[in-house]
Amino acid sequence: MGKEKTNQDAGAGTVNIYTDLALEERERFSRNVEIEGVKIDKQYDRKLNMTTTVVDIFNREGSKAMGKPEGSYITMETRLLKDFDEETRRTISAQLAEHIHQMLKGEKIKNILIVGLGNSQATPDALGPKVAENIITGQNVYCISPGVLAQTGMETYSIIKGIVGEVNPDIVIAIDSLAARNLRRVTTTIQLTDTGITPGSGVGNHRMGLDEKSLGRKVIAIGVPMVVSGATIVNDTMEKLLHILSSVEKTNYMSDIFSRYTSKEKYQLFEELLSEDTEQMFVTPKDIDEIVENLSRLIAHSLNKFCDEMINIA
Amino acid sequence: MGKEKTNQDAGAGTVNIYTDLALEERERFSRNVEIEGVKIDKQYDRKLNMTTTVVDIFNREGSKAMGKPEGSYITMETRLLKDFDEETRRTISAQLAEHIHQMLKGEKIKNILIVGLGNSQATPDALGPKVAENIITGQNVYCISPGVLAQTGMETYSIIKGIVGEVNPDIVIAIDSLAARNLRRVTTTIQLTDTGITPGSGVGNHRMGLDEKSLGRKVIAIGVPMVVSGATIVNDTMEKLLHILSSVEKTNYMSDIFSRYTSKEKYQLFEELLSEDTEQMFVTPKDIDEIVENLSRLIAHSLNKFCDEMINIA
Amino acid sequence: MGKEKTNQDAGAGTVNIYTDLALEERERFSRNVEIEGVKIDKQYDRKLNMTTTVVDIFNREGSKAMGKPEGSYITMETRLLKDFDEETRRTISAQLAEHIHQMLKGEKIKNILIVGLGNSQATPDALGPKVAENIITGQNVYCISPGVLAQTGMETYSIIKGIVGEVNPDIVIAIDSLAARNLRRVTTTIQLTDTGITPGSGVGNHRMGLDEKSLGRKVIAIGVPMVVSGATIVNDTMEKLLHILSSVEKTNYMSDIFSRYTSKEKYQLFEELLSEDTEQMFVTPKDIDEIVENLSRLIAHSLNKFCDEMINIA
Amino acid sequence: MGKEKTNQDAGAGTVNIYTDLALEERERFSRNVEIEGVKIDKQYDRKLNMTTTVVDIFNREGSKAMGKPEGSYITMETRLLKDFDEETRRTISAQLAEHIHQMLKGEKIKNILIVGLGNSQATPDALGPKVAENIITGQNVYCISPGVLAQTGMETYSIIKGIVGEVNPDIVIAIDSLAARNLRRVTTTIQLTDTGITPGSGVGNHRMGLDEKSLGRKVIAIGVPMVVSGATIVNDTMEKLLHILSSVEKTNYMSDIFSRYTSKEKYQLFEELLSEDTEQMFVTPKDIDEIVENLSRLIAHSLNKFCDEMINIA
Repeated sequence: MGKEKTNQDAGAGTVNIYTDLALEERERFSRNVEIEGVKIDKQYDRKLNMTTTVVDIFNREGSKAMGKPEGSYITMETRLLKDFDEETRRTISAQLAEHIHQMLKGEKIKNILIVGLGNSQATPDALGPKVAENIITGQNVYCISPGVLAQTGMETYSIIKGIVGEVNPDIVIAIDSLAARNLRRVTTTIQLTDTGITPGSGVGNHRMGLDEKSLGRKVIAIGVPMVVSGATIVNDTMEKLLHILSSVEKTNYMSDIFSRYTSKEKYQLFEELLSEDTEQMFVTPKDIDEIVENLSRLIAHSLNKFCDEMINIA
Repeated sequence: MGKEKTNQDAGAGTVNIYTDLALEERERFSRNVEIEGVKIDKQYDRKLNMTTTVVDIFNREGSKAMGKPEGSYITMETRLLKDFDEETRRTISAQLAEHIHQMLKGEKIKNILIVGLGNSQATPDALGPKVAENIITGQNVYCISPGVLAQTGMETYSIIKGIVGEVNPDIVIAIDSLAARNLRRVTTTIQLTDTGITPGSGVGNHRMGLDEKSLGRKVIAIGVPMVVSGATIVNDTMEKLLHILSSVEKTNYMSDIFSRYTSKEKYQLFEELLSEDTEQMFVTPKDIDEIVENLSRLIAHSLNKFCDEMINIA
Repeated sequence: MGKEKTNQDAGAGTVNIYTDLALEERERFSRNVEIEGVKIDKQYDRKLNMTTTVVDIFNREGSKAMGKPEGSYITMETRLLKDFDEETRRTISAQLAEHIHQMLKGEKIKNILIVGLGNSQATPDALGPKVAENIITGQNVYCISPGVLAQTGMETYSIIKGIVGEVNPDIVIAIDSLAARNLRRVTTTIQLTDTGITPGSGVGNHRMGLDEKSLGRKVIAIGVPMVVSGATIVNDTMEKLLHILSSVEKTNYMSDIFSRYTSKEKYQLFEELLSEDTEQMFVTPKDIDEIVENLSRLIAHSLNKFCDEMINIA
Repeated sequence: MGKEKTNQDAGAGTVNIYTDLALEERERFSRNVEIEGVKIDKQYDRKLNMTTTVVDIFNREGSKAMGKPEGSYITMETRLLKDFDEETRRTISAQLAEHIHQMLKGEKIKNILIVGLGNSQATPDALGPKVAENIITGQNVYCISPGVLAQTGMETYSIIKGIVGEVNPDIVIAIDSLAARNLRRVTTTIQLTDTGITPGSGVGNHRMGLDEKSLGRKVIAIGVPMVVSGATIVNDTMEKLLHILSSVEKTNYMSDIFSRYTSKEKYQLFEELLSEDTEQMFVTPKDIDEIVENLSRLIAHSLNKFCDEMINIA
């Protein structure tokens, strides 16, 4: 599908707000539209009230349409991620471990480097470092929390590349906090991908990509959206406003107004609605400290399980 | 000034969003309108780029118009609160200590109870507990961080009342994180008041008031806005939208739309724009962890200075 | 049993080092000696490799001989407390909850106040505050971490008495870090008693007692030894030295030396061996941070279970 | 000086307990003995009550006698390190920065890598990571906290070597918690050396050395003793015992006993006095949490000053 079509689908009120979730890129398109080079599979688990979506981007067109590299993206979505009991934790972390196994099917793994990305000093960005705290390392399981550029003065990529050169792992698994476009996804979604972590992503700003091309090893990335940007809030508000007004008014004055603007003018309007203050703000759940604590244990538990199984097989 | 006038002044897009700042209540009114029972004094310090505003509410009418109890409210506003060097810290904390002295002019103080309100486990609500960590207690300076209702199962009021009964302080000084209406005020404003902490305020929810009436001692409250609510973002967006559109369009379709709604209808519209998700979100600066750390040291430094001077005088 | 006898039993190298554990007071006496007013029952759980000892001090003589108030003292000792899996945690915390139920047999409990004693800023003293963090409070379960005298400027007793007066609980359960005499007991023993927390105890220094007499409510205290004092190390060394030398030498020169000193002279010798530096030191396990984290979860889990059962019965 | 001589000087009760401090190695020898290949200079600052000692080990004999690599060792000793005001902090950190400049005299430095060694999760080992938190990084100042082997599964050396290869700094400055032999030195001494961090040192166990030979860059190490081992306590006790007894008794029975043992037998005796429990224990000051916090700020302040000056010169 061409780019123009995409924009039309996206509707009057939509500005191209960044998201780390392939799922959310897919949602820019109408549900019935088939996108070339992209395959989607959804499954619903009633007990966990969990939707698992596998998005496969398998050629250049798919990659271009989605704005994401070719590869596999698995998302597990459930409100239970916000607050779960021990049994649920075990079930979800077993499923997550299983997804990692599937992504590596056939590959022989002897050494694993786990990388906890993000800033341990900023709660919504602390997921990676907190997962790293709970990893059980050993002879073949390595783990590092490199910190962020502002702390280290170095590109995260340089640190990881240096370490990879020294300890020579077969794969890298990176955990990071993500940015979502939709408030509902914050802390309710885990995304798993074999395409690595792409530049400019998430809460922090880890600029150079960690992926198979740059590191010479498959890089599996696990992320959870922890924030939406101020832009998202503005956008959400506008979309709701249009929706509400259009259902209240016979003639939709509002849509009228927007219809007279070009795309570029609309974009400028939204830019102006985003004040400088808003841009330096996070929108994050009130109980984010507790959620990061719980989610980091769940993911660490899952990775410990995966490493244990993988190393024992090898 | 009557209430109806107030609402008209406030403009089409304004919903009554809660603020802890007397200053922001004042801003609902036109600058030139004189409000009965309210006296305002502003001073500007060029070096600190700081505006100090004293709002005195001295009778019932003033209290009613402002929606705040009678008493004195001092706000110190400067961007420097976000990031300051040691000299600035000393200057600002000396001024803050001086303001506390002025509020107590003539009173003889022998014992002081400092109360760090808020939740040490939730960064933007941790200001009070973090100030408490840095208080130098002694024979006549007491300090407590009671925690929040969700942690203790008890009203903060009950805990403080019990302690006041046992240690019998001459005054109570309470520190808390506040909620502002305006993003610009977040972490750039310190408010000091002798009216205590009123119910339903700020980040947490400390329901029963700590004030002279309930505790039998003068209660000085020191607060810094740490968050704005989702509602604020929606409101800010709408106000800007109206403003931008009115300057772009000859005929303001948007204002036209709103002019046809009653106040109640407008309120309902905004309610709908606020999703459940938004309400459970904080909007807070990206570097909130560091800001809370720095501000808590500044305020603690100021209180230590005040207590030291006060106890030595007595 | 008279005091003189006790000292003879204790052997040449023993100085009267403070311990919070009734169990360790008992160990000053020969195993076969029966102490009037004291009843002891031991049980061993093979699976947990756990020894549970119930010491009942039921009259004045027993209290005098043991140097502890009349009441019941239960200790659960197992190396597993240092490092346990989830199943072990559940088993131990269920047993602990059961012991609390037994101590309250017959009493009708409607409200419970849980008090996490100690200093959250000093790792080995942070057990109480960390347990408090994990308590699920509610309509009838209250919880407070009052901090320590150096932080608050107030006696812990005053704070708790004030709160008890306001919220009127039926019982108080206090959790604290303890001091042991024997290194082996550090982080491997939980002591439960219905005699409250007595003055001068443990890691911190909570001077006025929290007990039924002072608070007008039964006070159950739960403690885990987190440190031994420098004095303990000196003492342990001397005892070992005597033991080793006596088994190596035909004539025990060392014992000869000590036999010529009076008790008072020996005490002075040990005093001199304890430098000022040693006294300001903790002896604590290298992984104390992790142990405090794990133990606080175990105890909180147990208290949550107890409160849940108790409130539902009532 | 030969090794045998050394042992005789060290006295009957001395076991060769590890110390990271060159100063303490020097103290094994009589004050008047001149050691070949070792130069010592002491200066006393009355105002700070601070002794600064420069130990230069400038050849193989010196290195052998001292059990330390050739190079320069500077120690700054003052009780003020435990508790200092702002002015003292500035003075001491300026002196420390000056010492680093002197060690690098003549060298042109364009890039600096600062390494915070140790375990942020174990208070006495957290000095390095906490210094790292407060470093101001920039275009030419890099900083990393690699964690410890138990956390990462990797030799610290491998991590740092990898990073050095990528970012190519001119020097490496490593900060670590040290082990001392003498309780008095704990948290009262800063050691600075240009010989790097040697294996087996300090609180943690960073096994492969970070030094000029292994990394190809000069490595300056800054350390503060944070613990003494259980062995130290045992040894201190024994030495005091001998001392006290010898001044009390005409004939020194105790020394008699030890004189009949060979060195090997004495060593075995001390080994036995060290129980397994003792070895897994830290001896550390009661207020270690606060001391680590303060010292890390002092050292970070000093390094920020040094980097700022160095980069500006270059």
